[in-house]
Amino acid sequence: MAKFKKVLLAYSGGLDTSIIIPWLKEHYDGCEVIAMAADVGQEAELEGLNEKAIATGASKLYIEDLQKEFVEDYIFPTLKAGAVYENKYLLGTSFARPIIGKRLVEIAKKEGCDAIAHGCTGKGNDQVRFELAVKAFAPNMPIIAPWRTWEFKSRDDEIDYAIAHNIPLKITRETNYSKDKNLWHLSHEGLDLEDPANEPKYDEILEMGVSPEKAPDKATYVTIHFEKGIPTALDGVEMDGVSLIKKLNKLGGENGIGLADIVENRLVGMKSRGVYETPGGAILYHAHEVLETICLDKETQHYKQQIALKFADIVYNGQWFTPLREALSAFVDATQETVTGDVKLKLYKGNMINAGVTSPYTLYSEEFASFGEDDVYDQNDSAGFINLFGLPIKVKALLDEQRGQNK
Amino acid sequence: MAKFKKVLLAYSGGLDTSIIIPWLKEHYDGCEVIAMAADVGQEAELEGLNEKAIATGASKLYIEDLQKEFVEDYIFPTLKAGAVYENKYLLGTSFARPIIGKRLVEIAKKEGCDAIAHGCTGKGNDQVRFELAVKAFAPNMPIIAPWRTWEFKSRDDEIDYAIAHNIPLKITRETNYSKDKNLWHLSHEGLDLEDPANEPKYDEILEMGVSPEKAPDKATYVTIHFEKGIPTALDGVEMDGVSLIKKLNKLGGENGIGLADIVENRLVGMKSRGVYETPGGAILYHAHEVLETICLDKETQHYKQQIALKFADIVYNGQWFTPLREALSAFVDATQETVTGDVKLKLYKGNMINAGVTSPYTLYSEEFASFGEDDVYDQNDSAGFINLFGLPIKVKALLDEQRGQNK
Amino acid sequence: MAKFKKVLLAYSGGLDTSIIIPWLKEHYDGCEVIAMAADVGQEAELEGLNEKAIATGASKLYIEDLQKEFVEDYIFPTLKAGAVYENKYLLGTSFARPIIGKRLVEIAKKEGCDAIAHGCTGKGNDQVRFELAVKAFAPNMPIIAPWRTWEFKSRDDEIDYAIAHNIPLKITRETNYSKDKNLWHLSHEGLDLEDPANEPKYDEILEMGVSPEKAPDKATYVTIHFEKGIPTALDGVEMDGVSLIKKLNKLGGENGIGLADIVENRLVGMKSRGVYETPGGAILYHAHEVLETICLDKETQHYKQQIALKFADIVYNGQWFTPLREALSAFVDATQETVTGDVKLKLYKGNMINAGVTSPYTLYSEEFASFGEDDVYDQNDSAGFINLFGLPIKVKALLDEQRGQNK
Amino acid sequence: MAKFKKVLLAYSGGLDTSIIIPWLKEHYDGCEVIAMAADVGQEAELEGLNEKAIATGASKLYIEDLQKEFVEDYIFPTLKAGAVYENKYLLGTSFARPIIGKRLVEIAKKEGCDAIAHGCTGKGNDQVRFELAVKAFAPNMPIIAPWRTWEFKSRDDEIDYAIAHNIPLKITRETNYSKDKNLWHLSHEGLDLEDPANEPKYDEILEMGVSPEKAPDKATYVTIHFEKGIPTALDGVEMDGVSLIKKLNKLGGENGIGLADIVENRLVGMKSRGVYETPGGAILYHAHEVLETICLDKETQHYKQQIALKFADIVYNGQWFTPLREALSAFVDATQETVTGDVKLKLYKGNMINAGVTSPYTLYSEEFASFGEDDVYDQNDSAGFINLFGLPIKVKALLDEQRGQNK
Repeated sequence: MAKFKKVLLAYSGGLDTSIIIPWLKEHYDGCEVIAMAADVGQEAELEGLNEKAIATGASKLYIEDLQKEFVEDYIFPTLKAGAVYENKYLLGTSFARPIIGKRLVEIAKKEGCDAIAHGCTGKGNDQVRFELAVKAFAPNMPIIAPWRTWEFKSRDDEIDYAIAHNIPLKITRETNYSKDKNLWHLSHEGLDLEDPANEPKYDEILEMGVSPEKAPDKATYVTIHFEKGIPTALDGVEMDGVSLIKKLNKLGGENGIGLADIVENRLVGMKSRGVYETPGGAILYHAHEVLETICLDKETQHYKQQIALKFADIVYNGQWFTPLREALSAFVDATQETVTGDVKLKLYKGNMINAGVTSPYTLYSEEFASFGEDDVYDQNDSAGFINLFGLPIKVKALLDEQRGQNK
Repeated sequence: MAKFKKVLLAYSGGLDTSIIIPWLKEHYDGCEVIAMAADVGQEAELEGLNEKAIATGASKLYIEDLQKEFVEDYIFPTLKAGAVYENKYLLGTSFARPIIGKRLVEIAKKEGCDAIAHGCTGKGNDQVRFELAVKAFAPNMPIIAPWRTWEFKSRDDEIDYAIAHNIPLKITRETNYSKDKNLWHLSHEGLDLEDPANEPKYDEILEMGVSPEKAPDKATYVTIHFEKGIPTALDGVEMDGVSLIKKLNKLGGENGIGLADIVENRLVGMKSRGVYETPGGAILYHAHEVLETICLDKETQHYKQQIALKFADIVYNGQWFTPLREALSAFVDATQETVTGDVKLKLYKGNMINAGVTSPYTLYSEEFASFGEDDVYDQNDSAGFINLFGLPIKVKALLDEQRGQNK
Repeated sequence: MAKFKKVLLAYSGGLDTSIIIPWLKEHYDGCEVIAMAADVGQEAELEGLNEKAIATGASKLYIEDLQKEFVEDYIFPTLKAGAVYENKYLLGTSFARPIIGKRLVEIAKKEGCDAIAHGCTGKGNDQVRFELAVKAFAPNMPIIAPWRTWEFKSRDDEIDYAIAHNIPLKITRETNYSKDKNLWHLSHEGLDLEDPANEPKYDEILEMGVSPEKAPDKATYVTIHFEKGIPTALDGVEMDGVSLIKKLNKLGGENGIGLADIVENRLVGMKSRGVYETPGGAILYHAHEVLETICLDKETQHYKQQIALKFADIVYNGQWFTPLREALSAFVDATQETVTGDVKLKLYKGNMINAGVTSPYTLYSEEFASFGEDDVYDQNDSAGFINLFGLPIKVKALLDEQRGQNK
Repeated sequence: MAKFKKVLLAYSGGLDTSIIIPWLKEHYDGCEVIAMAADVGQEAELEGLNEKAIATGASKLYIEDLQKEFVEDYIFPTLKAGAVYENKYLLGTSFARPIIGKRLVEIAKKEGCDAIAHGCTGKGNDQVRFELAVKAFAPNMPIIAPWRTWEFKSRDDEIDYAIAHNIPLKITRETNYSKDKNLWHLSHEGLDLEDPANEPKYDEILEMGVSPEKAPDKATYVTIHFEKGIPTALDGVEMDGVSLIKKLNKLGGENGIGLADIVENRLVGMKSRGVYETPGGAILYHAHEVLETICLDKETQHYKQQIALKFADIVYNGQWFTPLREALSAFVDATQETVTGDVKLKLYKGNMINAGVTSPYTLYSEEFASFGEDDVYDQNDSAGFINLFGLPIKVKALLDEQRGQNK
């Protein structure tokens, strides 16, 4: 076994990452463990974290506020791309891993750590996303993933170990949904959700909002302003990205917006079922798409749909820090030059109903759409257009006819 | 001007196609006009049509019931492809044109007509779709499109002409939304909808159902059974496609399902705003997609998303009868071999909430998803996987580091 | 008929554009005709052009040297994209039209012309490419395309008209291949080439070089240096783009490089047969592609192949001045950051044989490719990789087995 | 370590697979080893193989003639797809692995083997391709890959082991290129080729043919007939696929056809340099592509280019037995219905020069291509076509102008 003197651990304060601290010290011969907790908007869980980490055996805890960077450098580029994984998942967990991985490397280098540890299981996507980020910035840095090798077979094993090592946790032996939360979303996996034949018990599960049935009977209107594809104001009030998403999470959550219940394909192809709450994100994606329908020309809009599919795969797979992701972003940014304007939506019991869209760059023109004869569009042109557009069909049919090859 | 003796007209009985009958006879020197009305599920408008056509000057009216063929040969292949135009439009008008065009040719040949006429305007997609279908089956058949050439500048001009020619219409000079209805959908264009800044007045517009706000407070559950991608039963009752769609239209419409308000790009790139009601179609697309998430493997599912984009363009453009559409369908059909199973949905005020999906071919396995160590998935494999999956990132980072090329 | 006072004509001095001058003056009531000839490297044809244009009736001739701009803003972006139309055609004519169209608008505006005329036939691609460029910069500028409307039915008709109007041409009534030449290529169409069953008579046709059979028995080596995807030096000598292409045309032509004989699909789908000489271009494309194989990572390289297909269509269709072309170029440029290095090729009787490639950014590493166990690549990782990469196949096979669903 | 009683080994008779026999018996406690050699057209290496295998310790040798199946079920489907990996590699090794893997499973099941072993190294693609094929047909079958785990560090170690175990090989300690040969191709890797800066020493390397420089001064003509995309006759003589490829290998090899020298990306992204000889394959790909240019309509031809990219990746990655490969083949087969005809090529010192193509389904029509005015194509239609095709450009330019948004 490799020897490490100083290990940096991605730390949340939950059971898994808590027991990793003593486990590392045992397995790496009393190595020093430094912990890092990233604040990506998961809220409330950061209080008292320093004490807990120290009490568990860490020599130091970094709490890194990554919210602004998370929104501007990860969420908004993905929103601009319109990237949705498998037509439903807004990638909330996926792009939170690279930013944390990148900061881990920065701190590990600063602290002179000789390894980085994380608490991801060996069956999921997150281990891949973390480790790819580490490889991108510290290609030779050893990575420790205790879940893939340790002796614990169950949550109970972990709890026993925690108790034996006096880890200061509010531990319960009840099983819970497995969750991942940040500014953008909250995911739920496990328990009854593991069978796709089961309808989710939304009223027990949901935390960021309510189900459509519990939402108010009265609709809420919201107007979002975008500048070059980036949301910059709500109902006329300019806001930084973090505040804007928080506000939309509240509005969306209250109105039952942004629930997704999906069986998704993990990176390695294994299917997994999850329920996602992305109230603000769902609103932003919808509004951005509506705005694009009037600001992008047809060819760009259609081709961008393909780019979005690839972008989503790349983000889901944790390949954020790659030349391809950067090149795709260059494409996307070029298309967003004119994606500026206002989108008004009516939020009502899970529905986002378009209530008006305007843009100084709109390519929709009532004047042109209903023009008369001497204007932009001469209806006589249509005959010529159709004749040439249909030429391959006609030529094939004619030749088939001549040769008796008609099917 | 060309001379025609016998013209076949695609006839609906509305103002436009009604005045075309006398107009054709005037312009083509007393030519005979035969009319054909296609029943693609638009309902109720076919009664008394024969009398009206004869009274207007047609020598004969064909009423062709195309509903079954429409569902089986056009709607279901498109549903299986998962083709959605610009992420929202379920192609209701698009694939109704080719089937009518094909039948027009059949009747024109049987009747010995020397031209085919239609009542589409010169600014829209439908003229293209009709004419491409005609070209595919009768490449030399002349096509008459009076809208592109005649003298009428407005609806009032048309009405004056109708009155002058004693056309038996219930004519009002009120302006209406422009609509297109069939078994699959109902579209609305025009009036206040022409400005995308306006919220649609759903309570005035909707005909196939109600808005989410008018839908009942109690949810409705429905279970759809698919065989190889085709819906064959509802709540355990086997049904032919036409009946199944009608039933789902009712259930969906009542629950505010399937509204789309979009600014779409017409074939030639001009933007156009429409509101679509597709209650049954929206349910079928959603259910089919959910079923695919458990029946298709990841690579097939992802690549099929790209195929669906192209399929949608092809259908929207009226290129149904082309080698490419047929080849895309061959791809799609191959993927549907295992898309068999049941999807339960909860319909509630515009929402389709997954309430359970099962399939004898499911690739989701709770057993595999949560397996222990000696089973299908060995967590240790992950380390190797990640190392090789991340190899390009690592190699690039290492080489950059060696060369001082880090950004 | 519209009235124009001052028309700008895209002029080459050949028969077609020469007779257009008097024809315009006759048809537009003595309008003034200004001619513009673009120098895009077609060579030798520009001498005496001014006298000829004036003698033919033009009031002025602009000769615009566009070579540098052509290379830097059109050829190199397309080269960097690796865009090849239908796997063979290097787009020589396609991207020469937008640059000319753009300059036409600039001069038309400066001169206060009220229309722009060109000599393209009504069956080809070039009319589209010219007119799209004009629309992009002068959307309301009327365009005159005499070929689509005039009375001449044959080359003889044109010659008769030329003689009758004392047009100073060396006219022969012999029929010739239709050609288009510029710095990048020379195309041949017509005569015996119109039947794809005929082998081209290369020894009669070729002008920029010789056939492989006529090339020297001794090979020629050439080394091309690229900076960020752009060729900047030949055999160690730095050169501007124009000089570099001219030099490569000579070397390539002498060695029988860069011939393409293709049946291509025109924009409207009609098939057309042409022979292309692109000696320097073929070398540059090949060299650039070889360099990319060591400078781009796999994912970028593969996705760029798709981008190249679209880029080629866009360029072929004359859609150069569109948001989509610009966004595609943004993607491409992002990928070229590291495409710097040297490619040595052996030119021999039509073959381009790789003779060595190097780059300071190479991702190929002999050290890594043949590494031992303790290095970058641990062979044990492969087992894990394969198990997870093959997981979908295994799970499907297992489930099929359990259910007796094996095919 | 797992215990196996009877192991089936993919056996070639070379050093690697020969020493695996005693190694397996030593490591698995005297297990029985059955060997299988697949004849995929590698020629001459199969003589005396039975004696050698038995002498080396195998209890039995299967020699399986897979040539016909290889051609019909693997090579031709890939040829029809036009699949080329990274624009150069004709996949010769890639699709030879699945067919062998499939037969291995068949024999392993018949013999009651409890494991399958192969001699692929842990750094390459072939281990993946073999194992994916095994997983597809025997998902629970253990796979032994000694290269990934054994103690030998070098070829010398292997030779020492072979001598110590009396393995009857003509062993030399000279290092050689690493080769893979079958009916379709011969690949070369290693030695001086490992540095992409080195020009290949073709005159030392080549076995299936000669370099262009050594090819005869006189060209050879060959005419290939295809039926639905499949080559069925040569110079008018009908032939089965195996014979046809052998004949073309001879003709192509003699004329210096089909050499590729590439740095390719292995499945896991590591770059690797190889020289490939595919003389017959290169001719077939070229001829098939030429035939498609006259038999496929534009839209099908263009979209098929994208399908080909994906098909190539799938084959390269060893994912032959997957639903996606099958669905892609369904697409391809649908396009090949009309790909019937004759292609004449002139083979000359590495060049394949088109010498005429004909098809009863050709969509090229000299009559249409040069038609007059009253025929299929009315030149006046072009104006209308261009106006509508260019509408988005015009509208954008007009609106930009109105708003002063011109760039």
